Amino acid sequence: MKYIAVLGHGTVGSGVTELFIKNRTSIERKAGMELDIKYILDIRDFPDHPLADRFTKDFEKIVNDPEVAVVVEVIGGLNPSYSYVKRCLENGKSVVTSNKELVATHGAELLKLAKDNNLNFLFEASVGGGIPIIRPLSQCLSANELFEIAGILNGTTNYILTKMITDGISFETALANAQELGYAERNPSADVDGADSCRKICILASLAFGHHIYPDKVYTEGIRNISLKDVEAAKSFGGVIKLIAAASRLENGKVQIFVAPCILNKVSQLSHVDDVFNAILVKGDAIGDVIFYGRGAGKMPTASAVVADVIDAVKHISARKMLYWSDAIEGSVEDFDKFQTSYYVRCLRNEKTAKLVASVFGSVNYIEGYGDAELSFITPLSTEGELKAKCEQLKAEGIDVYSTIRVIDL
Amino acid sequence: MKYIAVLGHGTVGSGVTELFIKNRTSIERKAGMELDIKYILDIRDFPDHPLADRFTKDFEKIVNDPEVAVVVEVIGGLNPSYSYVKRCLENGKSVVTSNKELVATHGAELLKLAKDNNLNFLFEASVGGGIPIIRPLSQCLSANELFEIAGILNGTTNYILTKMITDGISFETALANAQELGYAERNPSADVDGADSCRKICILASLAFGHHIYPDKVYTEGIRNISLKDVEAAKSFGGVIKLIAAASRLENGKVQIFVAPCILNKVSQLSHVDDVFNAILVKGDAIGDVIFYGRGAGKMPTASAVVADVIDAVKHISARKMLYWSDAIEGSVEDFDKFQTSYYVRCLRNEKTAKLVASVFGSVNYIEGYGDAELSFITPLSTEGELKAKCEQLKAEGIDVYSTIRVIDL
Repeated sequence: MKYIAVLGHGTVGSGVTELFIKNRTSIERKAGMELDIKYILDIRDFPDHPLADRFTKDFEKIVNDPEVAVVVEVIGGLNPSYSYVKRCLENGKSVVTSNKELVATHGAELLKLAKDNNLNFLFEASVGGGIPIIRPLSQCLSANELFEIAGILNGTTNYILTKMITDGISFETALANAQELGYAERNPSADVDGADSCRKICILASLAFGHHIYPDKVYTEGIRNISLKDVEAAKSFGGVIKLIAAASRLENGKVQIFVAPCILNKVSQLSHVDDVFNAILVKGDAIGDVIFYGRGAGKMPTASAVVADVIDAVKHISARKMLYWSDAIEGSVEDFDKFQTSYYVRCLRNEKTAKLVASVFGSVNYIEGYGDAELSFITPLSTEGELKAKCEQLKAEGIDVYSTIRVIDL
Repeated sequence: MKYIAVLGHGTVGSGVTELFIKNRTSIERKAGMELDIKYILDIRDFPDHPLADRFTKDFEKIVNDPEVAVVVEVIGGLNPSYSYVKRCLENGKSVVTSNKELVATHGAELLKLAKDNNLNFLFEASVGGGIPIIRPLSQCLSANELFEIAGILNGTTNYILTKMITDGISFETALANAQELGYAERNPSADVDGADSCRKICILASLAFGHHIYPDKVYTEGIRNISLKDVEAAKSFGGVIKLIAAASRLENGKVQIFVAPCILNKVSQLSHVDDVFNAILVKGDAIGDVIFYGRGAGKMPTASAVVADVIDAVKHISARKMLYWSDAIEGSVEDFDKFQTSYYVRCLRNEKTAKLVASVFGSVNYIEGYGDAELSFITPLSTEGELKAKCEQLKAEGIDVYSTIRVIDL
């Protein structure tokens, strides 16, 4: 018999206990041993819960109980999660978490601590909810040199963009709609401004490239500025706007990484990923392109990933899993100004615009179907740095630039 | 140092050695030990191969060499693969194979042999080429009760159908085209008649449901009879024809399993899987729908899956992986005549047809855009058995039925 403790009884935590109770027989069969939840830590009381007698408010009881082999951290945020997880690992307990902020911020340190103590620190649920991605990345693709990971990693923004694209409603209306349905928080910033996607791509990139990439090194742009005009313009040339998080290893050995709305052509599989779904594209030297698709969030999909990690942790109680990356390497993230692609640009139209655009950008592809007041076009290949400078040139001549969106090939 | 032997130096085998030579440093880092290929078994000579000195024609040398820890079987077919693999497992060597026919035909027996000898028998490459699916199914989704697996498991037929749909060319022309490109064999039967898909869904279903399902129990229909008329009809109501292999667990505990061309609505993610790509949809109680997408065949993707298994096998040399199913359970496969869905039917049109269809099928949805000589429609929900009987009724009245295709929801 191995004992588990669950820290936090919110959405994911209650899903974990529910799933454990429901599928206990098959979970124990797969683990090859009897399992039980000994503690559930929460500041609230749950007198009607089937495991009501397991609830405690005292973390010390859990961390000091030698019978607890695996601790599930599903509190979220950094405080107190970070210190709890650290103390569990220092006290000989393997840890399973769904906490992307924790892994993106302290992953390298916690992985080292786990390694030094011959324990496992597992976090399949931190990216892509129930979609298996951490384990395939670390194991199934282990014969590959990975060179790119890109995906739609945030269901809330994908839902909002899908609504804008298919129903023609504005960002504000789609956001309100998402909030009503419980897909977006009252303060939606972590989703719509890209921080959530940023944490997830940091975790995936750290794993794929072997050293920690911290969120503050990543160019991050959300979807607040996407207007219906941009959505329509993208449609007119067979594209859709998606919030893309991407990381690739460059020939100079550095990692290029960003989160930003991008226009994808309809031939891209990712362009068909709609609503709250997530998809992650992985490119390796031998495997070519592989995509993992599914619900990126939600109580039960996430709980399912957590429980699978628990099974893995108890099965590998003295044999560590191959899941590791080292601390950050100074200067390993490429300056985002060097990123090169084509751009969609929407700007003020007056009698000077066409001539000015030609002289600043060279030969561009104009997009049809526009009103008299604005003009939009696709630039030739250009770096971020060049694009910024060129837009400044337009502005200096009185041509306001309303929108620039990367057009990428995935 | 652990030694590997590779049986067979065809497409996959040569990919395995190539990948091993190319990525050896990172493969050894991931395995946590030094690895080398000690033997390559082939009846041919390869004097210019970088590992020319490792070639042998003598299987006995390999099976009797106590230094060989892992044997890779990439000969294909059943003879001599089956006896070779058996002897390797009996002689204390873990086996990695890409051979779907072997696993679909003898999986339960070989898994038991591996278990009895505390060895691993791994076959990630047997389904979906380089797409990680066997390991996610057995591990990552281990907290789920799986109830359905469905997919596009054969790249050749998917290429042919894609060409018919997008270029409007006939089955025969598309097949010739696939043969020219090397996607189809000169004798294309295993692909176009569905046997390849059947073997793969047997492997996935055996793994998901825990007991072996043999190919001869599976209703299998290929794509030879799909005509451009059917393709166009499907298009007219927003559908595409795909060769689907599917298995689901019914409420009565039995498994419903088949391979057949099906019409999918464009809202299904699988409907967008084109050309030689494969995709596998997995439904579990907690996880919801997850899709794995990628190249289902090809030298390097398949070799990549084989090498990942080799790494896993050497890392778990004395700790078996959680990959197992028991032998077949008598009567566990549901009679396919009980399968229920809607059907697309194309038949002879004469003055009697409409009235007869109404009396036999009840209220159907007619498909527009047809010539005078034929009529096509979608039936209400019906079982296979009922459909067959109803088509017989039409035929008895002189109305030939040219085509029936299942319309399914995935």
